[in-house]
Amino acid sequence: MLTVNAIAAPSATDPLVRTTIERRDLGPRDVLIEIRYAGICHSDIHTVRGEWGPVPYPLTVGHEIVGRVTEVGSGVTRHAVGDRVGVGCMVNSCRKCANCLAGQEQYCAEGNVGTYGSVDRDGTVTQGGYSTHVVVDEDFVLRVPENIPYEAAAPLLCAGITTYSPLAHWNAGPGKKVAVVGMGGLGHMAVKIAVAMGAEVTVLSQTLSKKDDGLAFGAKDYYATSDPATFETLANRFDLIVNTVSAPIDINAYFRLLALDGTLISVGAPPEPLPVQVFALFGNRRSFAGSMIGGIAETQEMLDFCAEHGIAPEIELIDADAVNAAYERVLKSDVRYRFVIDVDSLR
Amino acid sequence: MLTVNAIAAPSATDPLVRTTIERRDLGPRDVLIEIRYAGICHSDIHTVRGEWGPVPYPLTVGHEIVGRVTEVGSGVTRHAVGDRVGVGCMVNSCRKCANCLAGQEQYCAEGNVGTYGSVDRDGTVTQGGYSTHVVVDEDFVLRVPENIPYEAAAPLLCAGITTYSPLAHWNAGPGKKVAVVGMGGLGHMAVKIAVAMGAEVTVLSQTLSKKDDGLAFGAKDYYATSDPATFETLANRFDLIVNTVSAPIDINAYFRLLALDGTLISVGAPPEPLPVQVFALFGNRRSFAGSMIGGIAETQEMLDFCAEHGIAPEIELIDADAVNAAYERVLKSDVRYRFVIDVDSLR
Repeated sequence: MLTVNAIAAPSATDPLVRTTIERRDLGPRDVLIEIRYAGICHSDIHTVRGEWGPVPYPLTVGHEIVGRVTEVGSGVTRHAVGDRVGVGCMVNSCRKCANCLAGQEQYCAEGNVGTYGSVDRDGTVTQGGYSTHVVVDEDFVLRVPENIPYEAAAPLLCAGITTYSPLAHWNAGPGKKVAVVGMGGLGHMAVKIAVAMGAEVTVLSQTLSKKDDGLAFGAKDYYATSDPATFETLANRFDLIVNTVSAPIDINAYFRLLALDGTLISVGAPPEPLPVQVFALFGNRRSFAGSMIGGIAETQEMLDFCAEHGIAPEIELIDADAVNAAYERVLKSDVRYRFVIDVDSLR
Repeated sequence: MLTVNAIAAPSATDPLVRTTIERRDLGPRDVLIEIRYAGICHSDIHTVRGEWGPVPYPLTVGHEIVGRVTEVGSGVTRHAVGDRVGVGCMVNSCRKCANCLAGQEQYCAEGNVGTYGSVDRDGTVTQGGYSTHVVVDEDFVLRVPENIPYEAAAPLLCAGITTYSPLAHWNAGPGKKVAVVGMGGLGHMAVKIAVAMGAEVTVLSQTLSKKDDGLAFGAKDYYATSDPATFETLANRFDLIVNTVSAPIDINAYFRLLALDGTLISVGAPPEPLPVQVFALFGNRRSFAGSMIGGIAETQEMLDFCAEHGIAPEIELIDADAVNAAYERVLKSDVRYRFVIDVDSLR
């Protein structure tokens, strides 16, 4: 067992504190990663505060992880000491169900093993990336191309794949009109990726406060959803809408922005149900879909795509001790666009 | 103007009564059809009772119409006197919008002109098929193959195309597992069509009372949705679910029956919103879609498909004076599976 520095949530209400956690001894298929950067995802906050269900406290969260391989198990073939690698939202799955065999481990019939707060195959509770080291099965470790800026690579492992996957699956590309709802950590990546795929991108944000950024990221248009005229102007316009907002929105108003055979994909969602007017789906034969991160092979594809197109998240680098303050700012949408912890501050 | 016999709703609360209505003089592109049979659709009842919005009373409903061409306008090229033809839910559209040009007139950007209760291009209110004759633009008149039983052909024009269109669009066929929710007028046609397309079909009905029929129509399985075990047994099973039920159902329970990339398509819907748990869509990357009748070319394709596969609705033939009693039976789901009016009883 390896005892490593970390920060952890002691309970749903206490701030995160410095502590140590245990990492398992390397099995033959395991990789030991010295973590260099860890992104802060809104899911981390929902989780530690107990908003998404019971939590095995104390818990170290973080599922946007990049670092270097420092040791490999005897049977590891996909990674070598010194490689720059990443770990995202899952660290294992059953590998036998139809979804796993189709490379869609995120939809594993038995439930994938989350990077934190899940019970792994060995019975231990997984601990996340706000930590100096992690041990992960090599099949769930990604190669992070060297030309992606090191500190900006981490958020690709969740925000990147969560937006890339639906854009790729629903064929965003030349000739397609794509709207992105929300300009936060996920939204700004959705804009960059959809633009790189060749789609015509429109941002739908509550206000125009981030309009300059949106256009700089390549969006063609930027509309405020607080202005009711937006919903008239854009009626029946989009082939795809990627909704990155977790708070409840008037989803039916967004459906009406979809053109023939258009799809609105939610990658964020409130815990309470959304009232869907089915008649709004009848018009233009519209669809409402959910999408959850992406498979491992697709995550590698996303990383390679971002490297090829020179895409990376906009980040604000912080020390580990600033995490609690950063959480408060995330809750106020006061970050452009993702906090990343410099894990050297934990050593 | 042609004065013809019909039955009409005088108000939202009065029973339908015999009357006469006017049909316009034939324009150069018009076809005069002597109606032989008219199906009774649940939509007719919703409409005449004012449940779907204001109604221009008195109104003759009916949008499942078959008959013979008895006269054609000077410029008509697609139909000839003596042809067996049909008219469905729409009789016109703008013909200029992207959807019309794509052959999806049902999704016309200006709204298609419904067969009854709509304002046609000439400013008159359209009147439906519970009538001896109708005048329709030739582009909205379908050819009804002679080998489809005459009295059973009418319901294909709404119940047939409403279920054929989503099954075709979402690629029901060999290797696909399709569930049909509801075994009424639409549901029994969805079963027959999906079976003919080569899919493996399961019926999900409130009770097992129509199980023998479902299996006789070619369904492989038949489950009662009143039994909670159904939702465990069938979890993650289906590629497509066609929901033909207009009453509110626990839609989230049905989402969980969808396999990876599965889609639940509603062709019926309650006026009130359905509470959708987006987390139920996240699993297996599921979609919830709406679908509304079908385009004109696709309706012809459906009629030809049914003729080729020997498929026709199960019907109960009634005289015009039995319509009010038939409405009450439709509301009690007491019909196997579609009432059809013998329009000779109106002459």
